Amino acid sequence: LKPIEWKKDSLLLLDQSLLPFQTVWVKLTDPEGVASSIKNMQVRGAPAIGITASYGMVLSVRGDNLDEAISSMRKAKAVLDSARPTAVNLSWATSRMLEKANLAVEQGEVKDVNELRELMEREANSVFEEELEAELKMGIYGLEKINSGDAVLTQCNAGGLATGTGLGTALAPVKLAHALGMDVSVFAPETRPWLQGSRLTVYELMTDGVKTTLITDTAVGLVMYKGMVQSVMVGADRILSDGHVYNKIGTFKEAVIAHEMGIPFFALAPTSTFDMKNRVEDVKIEERDPNEVRYIRGVPVAPAEVEVYNPVFDVTPPKYVTGIITENGIIYPPFEKNVRKIVER
Amino acid sequence: LKPIEWKKDSLLLLDQSLLPFQTVWVKLTDPEGVASSIKNMQVRGAPAIGITASYGMVLSVRGDNLDEAISSMRKAKAVLDSARPTAVNLSWATSRMLEKANLAVEQGEVKDVNELRELMEREANSVFEEELEAELKMGIYGLEKINSGDAVLTQCNAGGLATGTGLGTALAPVKLAHALGMDVSVFAPETRPWLQGSRLTVYELMTDGVKTTLITDTAVGLVMYKGMVQSVMVGADRILSDGHVYNKIGTFKEAVIAHEMGIPFFALAPTSTFDMKNRVEDVKIEERDPNEVRYIRGVPVAPAEVEVYNPVFDVTPPKYVTGIITENGIIYPPFEKNVRKIVER
Repeated sequence: LKPIEWKKDSLLLLDQSLLPFQTVWVKLTDPEGVASSIKNMQVRGAPAIGITASYGMVLSVRGDNLDEAISSMRKAKAVLDSARPTAVNLSWATSRMLEKANLAVEQGEVKDVNELRELMEREANSVFEEELEAELKMGIYGLEKINSGDAVLTQCNAGGLATGTGLGTALAPVKLAHALGMDVSVFAPETRPWLQGSRLTVYELMTDGVKTTLITDTAVGLVMYKGMVQSVMVGADRILSDGHVYNKIGTFKEAVIAHEMGIPFFALAPTSTFDMKNRVEDVKIEERDPNEVRYIRGVPVAPAEVEVYNPVFDVTPPKYVTGIITENGIIYPPFEKNVRKIVER
Repeated sequence: LKPIEWKKDSLLLLDQSLLPFQTVWVKLTDPEGVASSIKNMQVRGAPAIGITASYGMVLSVRGDNLDEAISSMRKAKAVLDSARPTAVNLSWATSRMLEKANLAVEQGEVKDVNELRELMEREANSVFEEELEAELKMGIYGLEKINSGDAVLTQCNAGGLATGTGLGTALAPVKLAHALGMDVSVFAPETRPWLQGSRLTVYELMTDGVKTTLITDTAVGLVMYKGMVQSVMVGADRILSDGHVYNKIGTFKEAVIAHEMGIPFFALAPTSTFDMKNRVEDVKIEERDPNEVRYIRGVPVAPAEVEVYNPVFDVTPPKYVTGIITENGIIYPPFEKNVRKIVER
């Protein structure tokens, strides 16, 4: 699975808003097109958005001279950044690209627009490769926790669709295990309200040939009770320095049940996911449109006027976290002490 | 809410297969029509099916003499029993009606078909009233566990739609509390795959004016973590003598999280729900059609060929059960000792 393909003068994106019902590749040739793809959720997931925006910046290197090219990049950054203003990876990537370009022009590293564009292309490739390398490292650390014959319970889609590399964070260990010929499988809960499990995780793992079983969110408990899974591996949207893990709604229940059943629970995320400043009482949990619960793919499933509470994330206290798998190694409790050692090294 | 209404020469059923999108009352005048309503899930839930079948038997009392009437009832019982062969309440109710009729004819209690029909009508009304009385008792016992200001988390629909009385088991305490003017509310998880929470519980409670909030099944953990509910009240499909509670898939996760968060977890069910013979290792958990997970109301939500595990029930070990509320009183641990005292009294 390769959801993002760079083709020198264009970017191909696998349209995630249509998966798994239609496999459509979107061809983008300018930053405006890239921005609308981000806005329309054709690409989603923080790292995937960062990679996509980086290539969007490459496509903006246009003009008769370096001044025009830099000016064009500056405009492209503004257009891209406004596509999803809360996605931090987006402005992080466009800033990185623009700063690199400015520095190269100032220091005379590039002589013309062509050279600038080649430099930008290498930089975007680096964004992609750094992400992939971090995921490979997480995958290798996570492999220690998987035995042949294991089934892994996940949540949402912390796979290669979300990161843009095709590998992913939470799914990296099981994909590497599969690639190494180990007998592994995944239980994917559908993950209401967005159904990233049924739509994306299942699609991604089936594409990669990993044995996958779809379950409802109500069935995660029974699957653990019956000993059908040997570990839980999920992604993370934010991790606090004391080990509180914020991730897609539904993660907390998996962690609590795993704890009770003696099944190890791992969060997998790059060290950039750590929030070393805030405490659990400072973090507000985002709530979304009630209609995401009242409707499924446009079909009503509840009375239209019912009151809805629709939080997007939940928080798992450190008590329930067996370990946090990063590109720098696995962090075990006590997190208060051990997170800093790995994140700030 | 009154989902079943007896009208002397006909039975009116609120068509639950269309709720909450359409409110359609089905008028039934013969046992064949009643049987197809049961078959087509226009009425569902064990007690509701029992009540409906009893009135179906009343409608079968036809003929020029008592012999013809008994023969007609016998045929009706066969037709009704085959509508949903695994529903034990169905054959229990039709047997009760037919035995009562046979006895009355043998002992000369009834002189003609009209008198037999009146007797059968009283018997069907008794089936209804006994159910309602049991629910009222459960509701009153459960009221002890509710304070004004409380929010109750439930699961699936163990309400008056499922029992046919309009009151219900798990929802009885909160409905009585509301009727008594207490400030109470309910969090209803949607309960995939069948969405009984979004479709039925929400409809039922809104109809009765009880404040209700719909959540996804993924959000039950956060709701408890944030202290948004003060108790969990669910129904039960089967309870073992050692306190293992079988109920709709997803109940177990609520019980485990409630236990961890210090929130009381109650199962509400009549003593007829207890299975005093089997042990947990003897009970097989029913699995249903994978397409219930692959599709929602006919709309695909996953790749059509994905493997699915779709269990209908789960089992909650006694460790996580604070109490079992029956019409004879509340049973507390140790269940191994206390269940018999209440159930066999």
